Amino acid sequence: MAAVYLDNSATTRVCRAAADKAYEIMTETYGNPSSLHAMGFRAEQEMTAARKAVAAMLGVQPEGLIFTSGGTEANNLAILGSVAAHPHGGKHIVTTAVEHSSVAAACDRLEQEGYTVTRLTPDENGCITPTQIAEACRPDTVLVTVMLVNNETGARFLLEQAVPAIRQVAPKAHIHADGVQAAGKLKLQVERWGFDSLSASAHKLHGPKGCGVLYLRRGARVIPRNLGGKQEGGIRCGTEAVPLIAAFGAAVEQLPPVPVQLARYDALRQVLLERLENIPGVRLHLPEGGVPYIIHLSVPGYRSETMLHFLAQQDIYVSSGSACAKGAKSPVLTAMGLPADEIDSALRVSLCRDNTEEDMHRFADALQEAMSQLARR
Amino acid sequence: MAAVYLDNSATTRVCRAAADKAYEIMTETYGNPSSLHAMGFRAEQEMTAARKAVAAMLGVQPEGLIFTSGGTEANNLAILGSVAAHPHGGKHIVTTAVEHSSVAAACDRLEQEGYTVTRLTPDENGCITPTQIAEACRPDTVLVTVMLVNNETGARFLLEQAVPAIRQVAPKAHIHADGVQAAGKLKLQVERWGFDSLSASAHKLHGPKGCGVLYLRRGARVIPRNLGGKQEGGIRCGTEAVPLIAAFGAAVEQLPPVPVQLARYDALRQVLLERLENIPGVRLHLPEGGVPYIIHLSVPGYRSETMLHFLAQQDIYVSSGSACAKGAKSPVLTAMGLPADEIDSALRVSLCRDNTEEDMHRFADALQEAMSQLARR
Repeated sequence: MAAVYLDNSATTRVCRAAADKAYEIMTETYGNPSSLHAMGFRAEQEMTAARKAVAAMLGVQPEGLIFTSGGTEANNLAILGSVAAHPHGGKHIVTTAVEHSSVAAACDRLEQEGYTVTRLTPDENGCITPTQIAEACRPDTVLVTVMLVNNETGARFLLEQAVPAIRQVAPKAHIHADGVQAAGKLKLQVERWGFDSLSASAHKLHGPKGCGVLYLRRGARVIPRNLGGKQEGGIRCGTEAVPLIAAFGAAVEQLPPVPVQLARYDALRQVLLERLENIPGVRLHLPEGGVPYIIHLSVPGYRSETMLHFLAQQDIYVSSGSACAKGAKSPVLTAMGLPADEIDSALRVSLCRDNTEEDMHRFADALQEAMSQLARR
Repeated sequence: MAAVYLDNSATTRVCRAAADKAYEIMTETYGNPSSLHAMGFRAEQEMTAARKAVAAMLGVQPEGLIFTSGGTEANNLAILGSVAAHPHGGKHIVTTAVEHSSVAAACDRLEQEGYTVTRLTPDENGCITPTQIAEACRPDTVLVTVMLVNNETGARFLLEQAVPAIRQVAPKAHIHADGVQAAGKLKLQVERWGFDSLSASAHKLHGPKGCGVLYLRRGARVIPRNLGGKQEGGIRCGTEAVPLIAAFGAAVEQLPPVPVQLARYDALRQVLLERLENIPGVRLHLPEGGVPYIIHLSVPGYRSETMLHFLAQQDIYVSSGSACAKGAKSPVLTAMGLPADEIDSALRVSLCRDNTEEDMHRFADALQEAMSQLARR
């Protein structure tokens, strides 16, 4: 029996087309895009093609994209770079208490440097409203950074609906969206929404690890953090990771249309929820309006780690929360005010297009089996 | 006829073993190393193997390595990160006028922030001596950052010989070596030499673009610049580029022993020099003690760009200098005090283990043909 991989919000398998593209670039089109000769030019062309594909996915112009080493670097560049670009701007930052560690850590550092950080807390379902975001802004707000989809609960934060109100109160604020868990799976119209920047990552959508992107609105400024040559308009220096960037583009081109994906995730989720609702002792956390590809649950009495281990022995892979937290108590669930026994037993099932109804049943079966075999504590 | 690729200091073709390894990781071992399950553990194991291989190449312990997105990020982390770690240290920096743009740009930024930067200039052959480096140091020197091999001329700067004298004058200085053009081709004993840090890049030694490494001596401190999760000991956060890191390791394992490589480069260089010395109008720049895999020449009267174009039409690829400068006037040659007509007509031939004597002859033949066909100006 094949593995049941349900940890797609941690990372995904690279699709064949993307892996093939990376291989081709590594062994054939291996020139340095900055080289003045034809080998360099061909590498440059591959990047241009990828830029177009990624831009279309995000709803932006290709010129606005800056390729980075991943979502973490993109978030750091947007947050630390935009604040550094406005040294005489305000000293107030709006974010949430449930951001990815790269956003949280960057905001923490700014707080240490003297900035005031407002961290919005979600309700018990994990929701944060556009009104909450807008109302937290002040005339001295220099940065608003909010994720579009929470990586643990799948809650969808509608930052785009808050943009007009933010602009009214804090016209100079840089509005950044962490789009890592949204890009490729939801319809994004980033330019129309008026974000100053948005981050995305290749390895969350069947592209390779080591590659991400920052969209930067024309006119929005960031101070570069990786200094050197003139790559990526001088904003992100260093020889471009051409094999990864081209593979990112190839992965994006392989994405089914968003409505097709969502219909599929909805159907899989429906199957899974029906099963889980019939297992006594399972508690579902379903944020209203959350995305269908992340399903969050707790099984009080069964520690996440024990459960992960049991499932992995049956070749079933889920996570206890964000992979980046590596076993630490989830700050997301803590911020939601979940009881300790639900935090300690949290499980995240995250889907990709390769998952099947069979996978849903195998997970539910294994969960039931675990609950009957493992000792409660 | 196959292409004659002589631009290996800009970037190299990824070797088959490394490309295969990257492909395998992308499509099979695609777990997130931070995941608590077996898929994550297998990815982690791949990184551990790569860490060992790279460490052996550099002459350091594997624990001292921090994987980055490339040489540029590694240099930025060492330079900006070490200075940030000593906010109350001295305000003097020693470097050279011929560093890679990533080092030069990082030092420029520190200068803007109030640091005094001493930039050593090479003699007309491109040489900078250990004595020059040591004598530039002062008790308030907080950072010494010098490349081991110049990327344009192949000059070898013996930073390691300056270490004891630097330590005497400036015991708290962080000593960083840019090892990008040295790693894998010269025998490095970085730990024994007592450097605080050294950078290297995968794509200069038949690994993929998008991956580099920073060695950090036990006890040496840098403030992280990519903030987020706990990856790489918290010093370089973000999901690790496992396919690239594993491919880096595979590429290192494919490297022939250094003496074998050097003997081969010496032989190729000998063939090329004999040919070039017999072409009137060619001027060779051969720094004493320079590495044999970079050969620098000028052909006054024939602009580099025109020459590159002519050669590329015959499927022969060299460069006019550093790829990162992308056509700008070389600051390296300017610092060496070369006459304008030699700067404007500079060519760099850089070798890899796949090059043949035939390649040397094809380049020399094409150069001669160009000189007879192209108009002097």
